[in-house]
Amino acid sequence: MSEQIRPITAVIMAGGKGERFWPMSRTHRPKQFLSLTGDGETMIQKTVRRLQGLVASEYIFVVTNANYMDLVKEQLPEIPAENLLQEPVARNTAPCIALAAAVITKRYGDAVMLVLPSDHVIRHVALCVDVLSRAIHAAAAGQNLVTIGITPTYPETGYGYIEYSRSTETPAGVYTVSSFKEKPDVNTARQYVESGRFLWNSGMFAWKASTYLAALEQYLPAVSAGAKALIAAYGTEQFPEILQTEFEKMPSESVDYGVLERADHIYTIPGSFGWDDVGSWPALRRVAKTDTNGNYRSGDVLTVGTKNSVFVGGKRLIAAVGVEHMIVVDTEDALLICDVDSAQDIKKMTEMLREQGRGELL
Amino acid sequence: MSEQIRPITAVIMAGGKGERFWPMSRTHRPKQFLSLTGDGETMIQKTVRRLQGLVASEYIFVVTNANYMDLVKEQLPEIPAENLLQEPVARNTAPCIALAAAVITKRYGDAVMLVLPSDHVIRHVALCVDVLSRAIHAAAAGQNLVTIGITPTYPETGYGYIEYSRSTETPAGVYTVSSFKEKPDVNTARQYVESGRFLWNSGMFAWKASTYLAALEQYLPAVSAGAKALIAAYGTEQFPEILQTEFEKMPSESVDYGVLERADHIYTIPGSFGWDDVGSWPALRRVAKTDTNGNYRSGDVLTVGTKNSVFVGGKRLIAAVGVEHMIVVDTEDALLICDVDSAQDIKKMTEMLREQGRGELL
Repeated sequence: MSEQIRPITAVIMAGGKGERFWPMSRTHRPKQFLSLTGDGETMIQKTVRRLQGLVASEYIFVVTNANYMDLVKEQLPEIPAENLLQEPVARNTAPCIALAAAVITKRYGDAVMLVLPSDHVIRHVALCVDVLSRAIHAAAAGQNLVTIGITPTYPETGYGYIEYSRSTETPAGVYTVSSFKEKPDVNTARQYVESGRFLWNSGMFAWKASTYLAALEQYLPAVSAGAKALIAAYGTEQFPEILQTEFEKMPSESVDYGVLERADHIYTIPGSFGWDDVGSWPALRRVAKTDTNGNYRSGDVLTVGTKNSVFVGGKRLIAAVGVEHMIVVDTEDALLICDVDSAQDIKKMTEMLREQGRGELL
Repeated sequence: MSEQIRPITAVIMAGGKGERFWPMSRTHRPKQFLSLTGDGETMIQKTVRRLQGLVASEYIFVVTNANYMDLVKEQLPEIPAENLLQEPVARNTAPCIALAAAVITKRYGDAVMLVLPSDHVIRHVALCVDVLSRAIHAAAAGQNLVTIGITPTYPETGYGYIEYSRSTETPAGVYTVSSFKEKPDVNTARQYVESGRFLWNSGMFAWKASTYLAALEQYLPAVSAGAKALIAAYGTEQFPEILQTEFEKMPSESVDYGVLERADHIYTIPGSFGWDDVGSWPALRRVAKTDTNGNYRSGDVLTVGTKNSVFVGGKRLIAAVGVEHMIVVDTEDALLICDVDSAQDIKKMTEMLREQGRGELL
């Protein structure tokens, strides 16, 4: 391929189900399409807005599934229809990114891809854009797989960690990654944070399409084979059918475990820009404003002797008396009351509803 | 007055506001007009039904205020309209009973009055009827003020206590009262229960109309004067106007403090019939069925890891995860979440709503 100027592209992954935000998130409207922090702008809209000045709308791709296509069109009218890529079945992030890499390769050649989740919070956008910009340059400079690491501020056990070598810093603040660590227990997390050698894995990446496709060929050949078939078919009438067949054949693999943990030439750029994956209701107390008693409030909420709780309501009054450490989410047809420490058990509730055939509430 | 056969009458006091059951109870529909235990029959309907075989409907009187008159008519169609007595202003129980005593005296002469709250729970109705029947006989036998005492089953601090002399028992199980005690602290309550000399004051009484009016004359002359004016005016066109004027002049006094604590010839009949005044939301766990985890549930309630809580809902699903020791009450326009130990602070919430001019929620 000739050395022409190629656009910078961005791939926003928006196929997640977000059940941990039930009952506000539903099968038909998961977390990325909600304004969790109550300011009217949804998570995916914020994700796109952050890219202003870095990636033009016409080069932003959204990968999602058929259920959410209408939501994406409604919430992101600035993204061209041909950039909305539909996963026929859920196959985790490695095939998701492979689909985008195939389309980008066919349309723009070997462009840099910025890969981004659609449902994270970033408080300091300018600082984030600076890191993303450096990641794009590092990705463009060679066959590099570049991850965005977050300097940890506390021993979070819900995130994966990136171990990096501090002596390898380049002038642009890029480091060599020595290993990826899965979610640690709290003692291990404390050691990670104290050591200064670990970053949170933000799930944001940058690489050239060719770099990613080469890594697939080496570490996930079944996904690589699908990607090649998609490149060949893109632009033909057969593409939708081939997309369906190839995706069904691909194994379900995450880019972290399937590619990054196995590959060489992995780099990271540490950032400190108020990132949070807002993984569950209690996280709202971290990422959004709280009152003087540590309560997050959205909607019509009145409290007496109430602290360290999360209230998400609508028009109806939520009156809390002597409540501590609780999550209260009030929607039209379902009300959740949950202890902060039991947030991970919300899925037991949704499973129970599924078993009882009450899918209308999911 | 000649020695003719006089009917047994009952006076049901139904003017209470019941704010402790907010947000289910509202200014326009307090506790006595609700089916708190979720079986469809309201507290006041249960109160009347318990009197079957003891007092004929035509001799049952209900004293309430203008706001609740329609509710009484709707819920108790069997009570004759002329037996619905309207307090022009709230003056506590002594004037309330004085009004009934005046009307009963004028209509039936010196009949026995059974005086009953409208919002208590009684589990064993037959046992209660037996006690009420003996109270009626004791009241008819002389100038006796007869109270129904409840053998305490635990050291409740929310009730008043009656101290009685066990050596004074009559063949009908009637005892002499030595003193009334206001709501005790928990240590005092424990001593009361252990001593065997104390009963809960149920707020149920029996006496002849003349006995009560004589006691008023002696201990509450201002109320007595009003009662005399009401006796004179009842049946005339001027009655409504005189009722208004006289009631406004009466002091606000409870029958317990204003009459019983001061009078002689006070008797009590101890009963054990599953009585509870259901004074606040946590009481529902005492008086109604709970699940194996000690939760009271009404409405569509699903729980995971949840215990010792009270859930009162309607059509909307209440999903509780890891909830302990909480009260959750869901109504159309307001949702209450309250720690069981903070139930007494619900009034702080209703005060706040009043201050904020949100009377539509009260």
